[in-house]
Formats: sequence, C-alpha cells, structure tokens
Amino acid sequence: MGARRAVCLMVVLWVAGLAAAPVASAEDGYDLWLRYRPVEQPWGDRYRTALTQVVAVGESPTLRVAHAELQRGLRGLLGVTLADAASVSQDGALVIGTRRSLPMLAGMKLSLPAPGSQGYAIRSTTIGGHRALIVAAEDDVGVLYGVFHLLRLLQTRQSLDAVELQETPAFRFRVLNHWDNLDRSVERGYAGQSIWDWHKLPDYIDPRYVDYARANASLGINATVLTNVNSNAVSLRPDYLEKAAALANVLRPYGIRVFLTVRFAAPIEIGGLQTADPADAAVKQWWQAKAAEIYRLIPDFGGFLVKANSEGQPGPQDYGRSHADGANMLADAVAPFGGVVMWRAFVYSNEQPDDRAKQAYSEFKPLDGKFRDNVLLQVKNGALDFQPREPFHPLFGAMPRTPLVMEVQITKEYLGFATHLAYLGTLYQEVLRADTYARGPGSTVAKVITGLAGVANIGTDRNWSGSQFDQANWYAFGRLAWNPAASAEDIGRDWVRMTFTNDATFVARVVDMMMKSRQAVVDYMTPLGLHHLMAEGHHYGPQPWFDGGKRADWTPVYFHRADAQGIGFDRSASGSNAVAQYAAPVAAEFGDIKRVPEEYLLWFHHVPWGYRMHSGRSLWDELVYRYTHGVEVVREMRKTWDEVGSQVDAERRQQIAAFLKIQEKEAKWWRDACITYFQTFSQRPIPSGLPPPEHPLDYYKALSFPYAPGH
Amino acid sequence: MGARRAVCLMVVLWVAGLAAAPVASAEDGYDLWLRYRPVEQPWGDRYRTALTQVVAVGESPTLRVAHAELQRGLRGLLGVTLADAASVSQDGALVIGTRRSLPMLAGMKLSLPAPGSQGYAIRSTTIGGHRALIVAAEDDVGVLYGVFHLLRLLQTRQSLDAVELQETPAFRFRVLNHWDNLDRSVERGYAGQSIWDWHKLPDYIDPRYVDYARANASLGINATVLTNVNSNAVSLRPDYLEKAAALANVLRPYGIRVFLTVRFAAPIEIGGLQTADPADAAVKQWWQAKAAEIYRLIPDFGGFLVKANSEGQPGPQDYGRSHADGANMLADAVAPFGGVVMWRAFVYSNEQPDDRAKQAYSEFKPLDGKFRDNVLLQVKNGALDFQPREPFHPLFGAMPRTPLVMEVQITKEYLGFATHLAYLGTLYQEVLRADTYARGPGSTVAKVITGLAGVANIGTDRNWSGSQFDQANWYAFGRLAWNPAASAEDIGRDWVRMTFTNDATFVARVVDMMMKSRQAVVDYMTPLGLHHLMAEGHHYGPQPWFDGGKRADWTPVYFHRADAQGIGFDRSASGSNAVAQYAAPVAAEFGDIKRVPEEYLLWFHHVPWGYRMHSGRSLWDELVYRYTHGVEVVREMRKTWDEVGSQVDAERRQQIAAFLKIQEKEAKWWRDACITYFQTFSQRPIPSGLPPPEHPLDYYKALSFPYAPGH
Repeated sequence: MGARRAVCLMVVLWVAGLAAAPVASAEDGYDLWLRYRPVEQPWGDRYRTALTQVVAVGESPTLRVAHAELQRGLRGLLGVTLADAASVSQDGALVIGTRRSLPMLAGMKLSLPAPGSQGYAIRSTTIGGHRALIVAAEDDVGVLYGVFHLLRLLQTRQSLDAVELQETPAFRFRVLNHWDNLDRSVERGYAGQSIWDWHKLPDYIDPRYVDYARANASLGINATVLTNVNSNAVSLRPDYLEKAAALANVLRPYGIRVFLTVRFAAPIEIGGLQTADPADAAVKQWWQAKAAEIYRLIPDFGGFLVKANSEGQPGPQDYGRSHADGANMLADAVAPFGGVVMWRAFVYSNEQPDDRAKQAYSEFKPLDGKFRDNVLLQVKNGALDFQPREPFHPLFGAMPRTPLVMEVQITKEYLGFATHLAYLGTLYQEVLRADTYARGPGSTVAKVITGLAGVANIGTDRNWSGSQFDQANWYAFGRLAWNPAASAEDIGRDWVRMTFTNDATFVARVVDMMMKSRQAVVDYMTPLGLHHLMAEGHHYGPQPWFDGGKRADWTPVYFHRADAQGIGFDRSASGSNAVAQYAAPVAAEFGDIKRVPEEYLLWFHHVPWGYRMHSGRSLWDELVYRYTHGVEVVREMRKTWDEVGSQVDAERRQQIAAFLKIQEKEAKWWRDACITYFQTFSQRPIPSGLPPPEHPLDYYKALSFPYAPGH
Repeated sequence: MGARRAVCLMVVLWVAGLAAAPVASAEDGYDLWLRYRPVEQPWGDRYRTALTQVVAVGESPTLRVAHAELQRGLRGLLGVTLADAASVSQDGALVIGTRRSLPMLAGMKLSLPAPGSQGYAIRSTTIGGHRALIVAAEDDVGVLYGVFHLLRLLQTRQSLDAVELQETPAFRFRVLNHWDNLDRSVERGYAGQSIWDWHKLPDYIDPRYVDYARANASLGINATVLTNVNSNAVSLRPDYLEKAAALANVLRPYGIRVFLTVRFAAPIEIGGLQTADPADAAVKQWWQAKAAEIYRLIPDFGGFLVKANSEGQPGPQDYGRSHADGANMLADAVAPFGGVVMWRAFVYSNEQPDDRAKQAYSEFKPLDGKFRDNVLLQVKNGALDFQPREPFHPLFGAMPRTPLVMEVQITKEYLGFATHLAYLGTLYQEVLRADTYARGPGSTVAKVITGLAGVANIGTDRNWSGSQFDQANWYAFGRLAWNPAASAEDIGRDWVRMTFTNDATFVARVVDMMMKSRQAVVDYMTPLGLHHLMAEGHHYGPQPWFDGGKRADWTPVYFHRADAQGIGFDRSASGSNAVAQYAAPVAAEFGDIKRVPEEYLLWFHHVPWGYRMHSGRSLWDELVYRYTHGVEVVREMRKTWDEVGSQVDAERRQQIAAFLKIQEKEAKWWRDACITYFQTFSQRPIPSGLPPPEHPLDYYKALSFPYAPGH
C-alpha cells in the first residue's frame, strides 16, 4: 500500500470513527421506517445514475418540505445532494411538482389523479432528450406523498428504470386518534407519555412534532385527533386552543389536519351555561362561537371527534335528545368552516342490556339518514372492544345513508401491550376484507366505509411505539388507510426492508414471524372466539375468573359463560340473537354452529366441552391444544430472532430479544392460567403430551399488577 | 489536486456524510457532559502523544467498566483505541488499577487515599524509562472515578505533562433521591416519566440505566434511592424487590448502592399485621425478615430512606413513639447487613404550629444522641422547603451526636421547573459555606454534615433533566458532594466545556450567565427574603394572594404577611423567635433588622413599607426594583445566548433559546403579578422609570394551570 493511500485510509477511518463514536444510540428505533441508511452496491450506483438533478421550483410550505425530505433521504441513502436545476439539463433529472408549481408539467400530457384526491403519479419519461423521472400531482400534498413513495422505492431496492405508478387514496379520512390526556398520560398507551407537551406549548416546539408529521405523511395519514375521546373541556379553553394551533402550524405543511375531541358538557364546564342541551339556543350559540374561535386560530381545523353517552361521558341523552340531535348541533357549528363531526358509535347505556355486543347497532341503526352531511359515524372494527379477534361490526353495511369511519386500535390494549410481538396488519386486513353482504356478495367492509381511524400507539418512548415491532402496526395502519386492498404481507415486507435490512433471508423469516404473530396472540389469550378474558381495568394478563367490579358486562365471566356443560356466549337465535344484526347470509353462517368459522365459534355459541371440532378433537382438547400452540409459536419466534437478529444493530436486537422472552413468559402464563381455570368447569384432563399448567389456580389468582401501564 | 487525492477526499466526505446523515438527533443532550466529541488541534495531537497504550489487567466488574469507559472516551475524543499492554513498553503508557489488580503498582512507592475512602490519585511518572501516567486507587471504584477524572482533563483541555492529583471525597454518602412513583410519575419531576420502567423490570434492562450509572459515577455519586419518599408499600413486595435487584445489578459495577424508601405502615399494608408500632415484637420481626429478604437479593443494599409522620405519611408517632423509636427499629433490622437508615427531618405535625419553620428543630433537637449508630438524619438545606433562597437549616450544628445528611433539590420545584435557567451550584455553595458557629467561627454547614442528598431532576426526557442547563445542576450537585469546598463557578466552567465547547469567549459568557441566574430567579420570584409565593399545589407561577387550601401554613399569605404597615414574617424575638434556634452569633445577626443580610430581611422581620434600605430606597421601591432587575437579567441572558449560541448545535441551541424566551415571559408574569398584588397593601406608586404591571390583578388571579407538571 502506498504511503498516500495509507494516509487516505487512515483519514477515512478517522472521519468515520469520529462521526460514529460519540453518538449514544444512533439505532434505537427513533428513525422509524425513514432510516435512510446507505444503500449497498450495486443499487447505490444504479440510483446515483438514475437521479442526478432535481427540478422542483414550487415554493409552498408543502412543496418545500417535500424537497427537503427528498434531499434528506438521498443524502442518507446515496450520500449525495442533488443539484437543483431550473429545467431538465441532463440524464437523471427528477421533476417534482404540480401543474401550478411547474409550468413544464402543465405543458405535458400527464394523466394525474383528480384535484383534491391527494393522489400522485411517478413516471419514467424523457424530457428534452434526457432521461427523467416525474413525481407529479394536482395537490401539493400529493407531491409530498409521491416523494415519500419514491424514497420507498429506493429503501426497498426497486428499479427506477421504468416506473409507471399512479396512486389515489381509497379513503378521504385517514386519521390517528390520540387518547392523550392534558396531563400527558395516555389512556391505553404503552410507549411513555403523550408526545404533546401541552405545558410548554405554544412556546416550545419539540422537534419531535416535525418527525411525527414526517412519519405520518410518509403513509398518507392526513388527520390527527390530538386529545382523548374521554375528553376534557379544558382543551377548548382559549389558552389550550393556542397550544393546539401551534401544533396545527407544524403539521399543516405535511397535509395533516388537526381535530379535537369534544366534552359534550363543555358549555357548562367552561362556558358558564346551566345546560348542554343541544336543543337549547344558548348552547347552540356557544358551540357556534367556539367553532368560530377555533377556526380563527386554525383555519384548516378538521372538526370534532365525540364520545357521548358512553362509559359515563355526558351526552345528548342526558337531555332526552338523540345521538343525531347532539351530532347535528355540533355539525352545524363547524359546517360554515368546512369542518366535520366524527361521532363515535361505541356507546352503551348504564343499564345493562341482554348483550353488550348488540348495543351500538340497536342505538344507531334507527338513526340512519338522520345525520347532517358533515357527520361521520366512527364504528369500532368489532362490536365489543378491540379484542385479539372479533367478527366485523354489524353496523358496517347497515347504515347506507351515513358515512362510516372504521376505528381500529393500533395500540395493543388487549394484545400484550408493548412487549408482545403482534403484527396487526393481518387483523386490519381481515376486517377490511370481511364481506358484509350489505349490497350483495363482495360488499366488503373496505367498500362500505369512507375512512379509517387508528388509536395511536405513539408516545415519548425513544422508539415511539413502545417496541420496535409496534412501529409496524402504525405503518400498516397508514398503508391500509391509503389502500385497503393492499396485502398485509406486502406491507410488512416493505416495513422490514425499511426498518431493518433488505437481506432476503432476514426479510422472509421476519415477515413470516410477523404474519403468524397475531394468530399466536389469539391462541394463547382467547382462542376459538373467546373474548375479554383480560384482567379488570388495566387489561394486563389473564383474569378469566373475574366477576366483580362496576358492571357485569365488563367481566370475563359475562363473556365466556363457562359452566359444567360447556363454554361460549350464545348469540344465535337461541341466545341473544346478536347474529340477526348481520345481513341474512352472514347471520345464517354465524348463527349455525356447524357453519360458523371455528375462530368465531365461542363468540356466537355456547358449546359443549365434548363437541367434536374439525380437527376431530373435543372442544376441551382443542382449546388446550390452541392455547399450547400459541405458546409454541412464540417460542419459534424467539428462535427465529436468535438466528437472524444478528443482522440488526445491538440496541434494537437486544430489545427485541428481551421483549420476545417476556412474550414467551406471558404467553405461558396466559395459557396456564386460562386452562387451569376452565378445567374447573370442564373437569377434563389435559390432553396427553401437552404440558400441565405450572401452578395451581390460586397462584394465578393471587397475582396483582396495581401499576400496569396505560390505565 | 492529484486524481488520487481527489478520490481520497471524496471518500472521506462520503464516509463522513454517510455516518452523519441518518442520525436523527445526535446532539440532543442525551450524552450529558460525557459527549467525548473530537478534540481540536493542537490538543488532539498532544493527547495522542501523551496516551499511547494502556496497562490495566484487573478483571473486576468495576475495573472492566473503567477500562471500557476509558476506551470509549478516547475513541470519541482522540479517534484512537489504546493498545492493551501487559506492561509499560513505550512512552505514553497509561497504568490503571489498584495495588491488588496490578502487582506493578503494589511494588511502587505510591501514596494513595486510604482503602475504603473511594479516593484516587493520578500521577505523571516514569516507568522503566518510559513516560507514563498512573491512575491508581485502593478501591476499584476509585479507579473508575480516576478514569472519569482523567477524561475530564482531556475534555477541558488540561495538560497531561505533569499531573499530580489526589482526590478523596469529603462525604461518605453522595446520594440521589428519586421522588419516582411506581406508576412512573415523578413528584416534582419536570423531565418526563421516571426512568425506572418498573413494569418491564426485571426482564428488560433499558440501556439508559447504564448511561445513568455512567453519568453518576463520573461525579462520584455512590448511592441512589429508587423510590419516592412519599412511599408505597408495594415497592417492598417480593416482585418489586426483584425489580430493584435487577437495577442494583446494573448499578453495582459503577459503585452505586441502591436504597429504597419505606412506608412505615408496610407491616399492615403488605404484611397482614394489625399494627406498625415499632415497639411491637411482630413488627420488629417483620422488618427483620424483610431486611433479610432484601439482602438476599441485593447483598450491597444501602438501606432505607424514611419520611414518617409528615404530610400525612404514617409513622411511629401514630403509636405514641418517637422518631428515634421508629428509626432505631428499622436501623436494627438492617444493621446485621451493614445497612443504614436515613430518617428525614422534614416533618411537621397536623396541628399548625406558631411557625412552620421552627418545627423540625423542635422535634429533633431533643432526640440528639438517641439514635442508633447507623441512623442518619436527612435535613433539608433550609427550614422551609427548597425555596429559591433560604437561610441554612438551624438543625445544622445543633445535633453534634447525630450524623446529618443535607438534602437539596436538584429538580426545580420552586425555581421555574424545566424552562427557567437557574444554575443551582451557587445555591448549594451558599449553604455549604454558611457558618453555623456550632463549634465556633468556621463551623460551616459542609463541616458539620456527613452526606449530601439531592432530589433528582432526572426523567425520560431525551436530555434527562428537562432542559440542557438543568443538567448542570445534577453535575454541580455531584461535584460538590465530592468536594464541598469546590467553587460553583469552576464547576460550572467544567460543565460548559464538557457540555458545549471549550471556546474561551463562549465559556466565559455562558458561565457568567449561569452564575447570575439563580439570583435572577430569587429577584423575580421572592426577593429580599420573601418565600413561598408560588401557586398552590403545583407551585407553577405566582399566587401570593392564595389563602385557602388544606392548612394556613401552606399558603403564601401565611409566609409574606403583607399588610398596610409592611411585609415579612417576624421570626425575631418579637415574633416567632425562630432565630433562637441558631447559635448565638447567628441568632444575633439574623434577629437584628439592622444586621440581617438584606437577602434574608423579610424571612426574619416584618418590615414597614417605608423602611430605608442600604440602597437608600424605601422597602417598597427596593422590592419593585428587585423584581424588575430579575426580569432584566433574564433579558440579558437571552441576549447573551443570541450572541454566543451559534457555537452550539441547532437542536440544543434552539431549545435553549425557546426556554429562555419562556423564562423571560414568566419572569415578567411573576414580577407584574406580585407587584400588583403587594401594591394593594403598600398603596404606593411604582417607582418612576420602572414599567407598570401589564395587567390588573384580576387578570393574574384568573389564570389557572390544572395540568402543570410534577404534581
């Protein structure tokens, strides 16, 4: 080696060492799927050849952040900063903009998604004899989305040689719901505190707000509800509206509109009125004035999300008015400004009904057609409450004259909190593809809704979501809200490539693990249609024996109904007849113990312990088998990670390994506690070959977790 | 430029670019004062010449982390990894160890701090004809402390040519107190949640625990109380002890012993006993068994910190026993294992006394000599409660037969939370140097105490302490706990150099700003000896008018006693006579309105509005002048930062600028609200030339902050 070359190498190592050494935790998950780490060869050279200059003269805030993100991404991925050019002057030109921002595009024959659609196109073409790539849209935000898509092509090592892409989001509303309280606690949050630092707002803008906006915009999420549905009137005080406005200012360039939740009694609690009756003129006026005040501060304010007359929240029924009366009053207040009201269908009265799962349908179905045009009804994916598996909500398809937004949980309230690996892309896909038969076969849930709302799993934890893999659920939610026909597996594959590595073996094995993971949780917690066996209140761990507390229909025994004969909730015609809330073909299938898919068996039927399952086993044996299988899958997941995790940087690898170990321990706890308990009813032995529970029932009953998070 | 050189430069830039680009926030404050950024020339070359190999063969966990820290530091600072050598074989050898770990050291004539002292020496010498530097100690942890000291020499650009250093800590107990609850909330915490993730412990060890240990060890802090003094018996349950043991395992190599707080009623609450009477045999036995259980899990467990019979906490007085009875019972339980009990003197009964400031002295002074040898009494720096300024606590020097630990707040409960820049090194120094006259002149507080305890300002915020500058308070606390004679200014200078830059102008101007900062807070909040004018409960902002709540001696009006005649709490012989609790020379000075230092004037005297101050102004005019001056200093601090902040990376610079802006706004709020309110008593005009308050009093009274943090 020549002296000069040796010096050169030393300098290289020196610079690399300096840059790397002092960084405490460069790979801790903070960068999410926007890591922009260097692309290996030959892809690096290919991309550097394909992209050599950028033509992007637009000057709106959104076009500016699109340009900045592009350069940031390419600097990380390719180590280059593209030269800005006024026009295409060489091969490898990247032309970015709208017809308004770039007259060049206006002059071309370009088929683009319609204005207002937020879609975009990415096309390989030739301009003035030069090879070029166009990222174009009618809306500025479409350009931003297109830039993120382009970067994703590089992040996942797609060829840029002949790109011909056109994307339009399926849903107009792609919304995050933050169940974040003003004291920074997060209801059902397992990732630290709320990222909204209300106390320091509006004066201090945490740089994290910008990274939050970038992450969401990269998925096409275009709305965020800042506050908890269990709401607080203080969030509508003038000082808090200024804080919300400061956040809206950060999010606006990224195409994200801010919503707030409404405390229905706010006119009393902060308005000094004697009533919150939606028919009262002073109440209407108060809300109109409040809406005007908000829109002065936040001109593109999205509107209100409302949980009313549910779980103790005030609402219109307190005054003998209907949900429609309440929603319409608020809708009228925001209508002049283009706002909407999202009214939650997750309601149940304080009187206990025959079947809690029936209540939303009973309450809202009769109101179809009674809502203003700017009211959307937000319906949870299932009729109960974000269980590991639920059949789709019977309201989907049942309210043809009311736009519905489906609410799913991204946070894992019932799926093991932050430490259990449970990829929810499969859960979302399952319900989006479920056929309601509302307008005949093929009327999938995806086709009868107009929006997707996800209860965020975002907090101040360095990795945002409490675990590395929980980031995948935020990611999958966003991608499916854009395109509900996309495959959870493809989305998972993109996420793994962007988040960890493009190594083919790693991608294949980790995606396989993710695809099995949610079913594993179902199996070790609530197999065969069982539901809500979680501990009271915080929902951490199993408590199938719990029968106390505030109301019976919040208890596991209400839901599993185990007795000496069998187990399961009879919702067929012989029971609560909840099946009748579905379209006839669905009702017929779910209501028939022979036809119902086994994953919903105990959701809809009370089944004898000796009932013969498809496997040939008795129900009891099958139950124990499923519980056992769930644990085994987690054990395999740990093994997989032990084998492939070495491809991941130390901090993330070790965290994932530690969490998988916790998951295995807790999966076993779930299995053993539930089996031991249900055995007191079945009085049947553990099938031979399967391990007996580790402890007697009293051991599991004695465990207590007074400080489980998220509650 | 030759082609090869050009390529070389390109590669360098490429590598530098790659390494730098994807890191989201390399400089966000996480690295604290252990940033280890590259040393500029000529210092870089000097240090690389001075340090060329390392001889450190010890294999204890503590020696291993010392070695790892050394290499980490040098890699960052100098871009080198020192070659490990079995013996000194060239110039620039660094010899690290104890006489036990390195026989070479045992053979040398080396004067070292005594075994058990935790001290160390760093010496330049010659070994076998080679230039060498020795970092040696009798205790392993002394070696670790010495390595951090050596790295500090590099970080602050000190010459290594002729080092001759010997350090022994002044106090045996250098303790952090975490007021952290098991639900991760932190009482009086302004930096996010507790870093202790109890829910995931003991299975998941957050890498942050290690960085916490490194930071504390770098200061010589050797103990940490994990749990809040307002304690929870659950922390003594077996499952929680396992969690504490997992933390103890992480902290042990860094010389940090774990303590827990004690809920005095634990034998009832988790032990199933009917009483917690310290004279009850079953109670004694329960604590003995509990201590044995803890020491099985944590062999080096430090002991218990106890807040009893104070602010509603249970204690021995519930059973007619004294504080000594309670403390001794616990002390007997931990004595066989070498543990200690730290008993807090911050007690006051539920009956309101004539002067709350007198109560700790009245309660504890008669108990001097009644405590077991392994009981320490933990006394707050002042008699009230961590005010911006208090005279030293009269118990210091008053209990010659009882070892006292002084408790100071690092968190800024009463000094503006996280956003106000208030360097507390000056506060600690002021009280450490205060003369108690207990054993004649020169009996400073530092000389009559045996330990320093600091209520931590540490949380999950990325910057650990809520703001960049609040890190300086953690740092200064640790350095003064090691050497209470050190100067707050010198310590501040080291901190600025290590945290930001060694640029001389920057260091001088920022240290100057820090040195003035705490006095500025005193001036704009509570000048001239005023105290506790903070809002009720959360203590955020001014509320001098508040007179409601649970008890009178928690209200501002109790403390300021403003009326038409004047203002101030008469603690002289004509009033509560609290001055009599001090040694005679101090009592004579404080008790005499003519002799008392003006900064304590209104602490000890009720003074007429027209009283002539040293400045020649009336008390009222002086008061307004001081309030105004406090605001002006903050304005100057902002100006300073605008001028020199460009030397600091963007994220930290901008956060500091935003916080200083908040501080100025809130300083003005404090001034205006207090002046407007006190003016209703003085009925005197604002001195000419000083700005009138911005709003009428009602405006300030109407402000409310229901979600102020830390409460």
